[in-house]
Amino acid sequence: MKSVIITIGDEILIGQTINTNAAFIGEKLSVLSIDVIRTVVIGDEQESILNEIEAAEKIADLIILTGGLGPTHDDVTKAAISKYFDSELVLNSTVLTNIQDLFDKRGRKITKINEQQAYIPEVALPIHNPRGTAPGMWINRGNKIFVSLPGVPAEMRGMIDEYVIPKIKELIPNSNINVLRKNLLTTGIPESYLFEKLGDLTELLDSAKLAFLPSKYGVKMRITVSGADSSSLSDKISEIEQKIRTRVGRFIYGKDGELLENVIARLMIDRGLTLAVAESCTGGLVSHRITNVNGSSQFFERAFVTYSNGSKVEHLSVDENYINKYGAVSIEVARQMAEGVRAVSGTDIGLAITGIMGPTGGTENKPVGTVFIGVCDEKVCTAKEVKFGDERVLNKERTSQVALDILRRHLLGIPYDE
Amino acid sequence: MKSVIITIGDEILIGQTINTNAAFIGEKLSVLSIDVIRTVVIGDEQESILNEIEAAEKIADLIILTGGLGPTHDDVTKAAISKYFDSELVLNSTVLTNIQDLFDKRGRKITKINEQQAYIPEVALPIHNPRGTAPGMWINRGNKIFVSLPGVPAEMRGMIDEYVIPKIKELIPNSNINVLRKNLLTTGIPESYLFEKLGDLTELLDSAKLAFLPSKYGVKMRITVSGADSSSLSDKISEIEQKIRTRVGRFIYGKDGELLENVIARLMIDRGLTLAVAESCTGGLVSHRITNVNGSSQFFERAFVTYSNGSKVEHLSVDENYINKYGAVSIEVARQMAEGVRAVSGTDIGLAITGIMGPTGGTENKPVGTVFIGVCDEKVCTAKEVKFGDERVLNKERTSQVALDILRRHLLGIPYDE
Repeated sequence: MKSVIITIGDEILIGQTINTNAAFIGEKLSVLSIDVIRTVVIGDEQESILNEIEAAEKIADLIILTGGLGPTHDDVTKAAISKYFDSELVLNSTVLTNIQDLFDKRGRKITKINEQQAYIPEVALPIHNPRGTAPGMWINRGNKIFVSLPGVPAEMRGMIDEYVIPKIKELIPNSNINVLRKNLLTTGIPESYLFEKLGDLTELLDSAKLAFLPSKYGVKMRITVSGADSSSLSDKISEIEQKIRTRVGRFIYGKDGELLENVIARLMIDRGLTLAVAESCTGGLVSHRITNVNGSSQFFERAFVTYSNGSKVEHLSVDENYINKYGAVSIEVARQMAEGVRAVSGTDIGLAITGIMGPTGGTENKPVGTVFIGVCDEKVCTAKEVKFGDERVLNKERTSQVALDILRRHLLGIPYDE
Repeated sequence: MKSVIITIGDEILIGQTINTNAAFIGEKLSVLSIDVIRTVVIGDEQESILNEIEAAEKIADLIILTGGLGPTHDDVTKAAISKYFDSELVLNSTVLTNIQDLFDKRGRKITKINEQQAYIPEVALPIHNPRGTAPGMWINRGNKIFVSLPGVPAEMRGMIDEYVIPKIKELIPNSNINVLRKNLLTTGIPESYLFEKLGDLTELLDSAKLAFLPSKYGVKMRITVSGADSSSLSDKISEIEQKIRTRVGRFIYGKDGELLENVIARLMIDRGLTLAVAESCTGGLVSHRITNVNGSSQFFERAFVTYSNGSKVEHLSVDENYINKYGAVSIEVARQMAEGVRAVSGTDIGLAITGIMGPTGGTENKPVGTVFIGVCDEKVCTAKEVKFGDERVLNKERTSQVALDILRRHLLGIPYDE
């Protein structure tokens, strides 16, 4: 099965919005072994949309459009689809009820232009949109499938997961060649080090493929195996995974789409431990990531964003003399912050971060990018130094990842050295 | 001048990485009135890369490639470029020094495969990459320009801003038709309400264009004017902006690429005010956003992520009886949290957020998505209720935006009603 993804919106063409939609859909289709053969971005113009659907219909079995379904004058996708299929717009009462419910829930009054969103081409099945007022549309013609979804990512994603993917799964026949992928997620080690530690890849991989995908949060290793016998593929991928883990296992925090914060949550909850966090330079990001996890209140007790020195002394009992002697950004203060936040919060573990995120504030001894991370429990209280670059937000993000990884290693008894 | 952007990487094709690079470059080119006529994603294969450069050279004056320049076996872009231009790879000592410096700064030892990154095709000028080991390449042939950059966004972005855009600016002739755009950023009002409040768009816009671009943080209104006489364009855009502001000005927090946290920082610093934050349901996100701003330590004193009830009582002096009577998620507790954090921190303003982010934890009276935001200064202490949907991370993000907007309106004396 071949697929084309058409993203509609001037804002993407001129780069004011990034095209997360094509990636999201590409990943979902790829998991089902559907080839995305083309991804194209066009503007909000009826003619371009008509041309693009026509071109896609010639080469693909599944055409997914996103964008251009909003209530205002610059949204023209629905009219284009109505024209392409020569199918009149008719009022759909289920869609209308959904729109009314959404406005009720937010305590707002529905407007006339939102009511017009309940009209869809007669040829289309509506796709329920629980997060917004624009319905999606599913159209079958011949053996081709056309799907049109709103461009707002949260709305589109829900509709893909809850409607489009389940429906496609029912329709696709079993393929001859199966592809299986597994991602091993590492952090705290550069791509080149990982590559060297793995040694001879030909021996390691046999006929499988391995890709290294670096990002700000670490390097993802993607293993791909393929073959006709689907039952042997998962054995083969496990075998390769085991070999990789033998060599670089301590750097692997999770697999596939897992986030480090979810790994932490599982470890904490499994062990029945509680956590408090003291953040200086990360300014709340570590706590934000932890509390993104549903159920984090089971182990996350509280956090302090002690930006000022005064707040470090007042709330975390950091010794003012230490700040004067070693500086607020020091291994000694990181350790005191971790111990202090643990004590005041009454938790099993305290995690603390202090550093210089830049672009200003560096010194010769402690340049921008210098960070100290402390972690304490009842028995052990340590801190580590890590070094980053010059960019503030990137430094915050990388620091949050290392802090969570230091906590992970602490929980698993893996020393934080290479 | 016409441009094609080629994004290289299997990981984008199968959607494991989103193509932020094309958007970033598209925006930068669009500002210079360079048309991005095509954006294409291909895999890490030499043949595809060669074909795609050839196709692009036929239709565009400027071809920008990103990706495939890493140190490992799956990066083949440099070899493809070497082949396309029939130009040997030679060692560039400036690049080698940069790679060595980067490893020194992180306190790591350089590896052999990183040293190989210092080889580039003889035909290419190296583009300095201060954030990573892969150099970029700039190649002129005939009147066409070819640029190849690494795919890691932070590295690519820096090289676009610091090298590619300045160099292109020197080269482009003045165009006949000028395009001017301005974005007005709103929050706290749905797209359809904004549309209705603006009234007759034909009268408002004359021949200009207006697009509504909704996102999780609000609706962006993009005004576009074009014409031969560039001097009149900025007058025309200002005139339209003024008309829009007269009608919906209270919802507009900024323009173009501005972030609400930067607007807050400017307002706080201009007024010489200090801020402390108490976050429950947002878990540190509001503080994280504020501390993303360089210079935020000038006004941001500290924050408490009081996830547990005990921490609200201990640190913010919230009345335990209030929690029992009204619930931790209530207008009364939001107000007490804001007042409490202001008092304990000794700041001019206290901002507090408490709510139910989901997916569980809702009740009939207070369903998931219920949020209370308090803001207090020396004279006024108020709290507002806002309502969101069912998705945890999206709710946190939307809540952080409303909290910052309530603070903005408080500072500007704009009531938080529609």
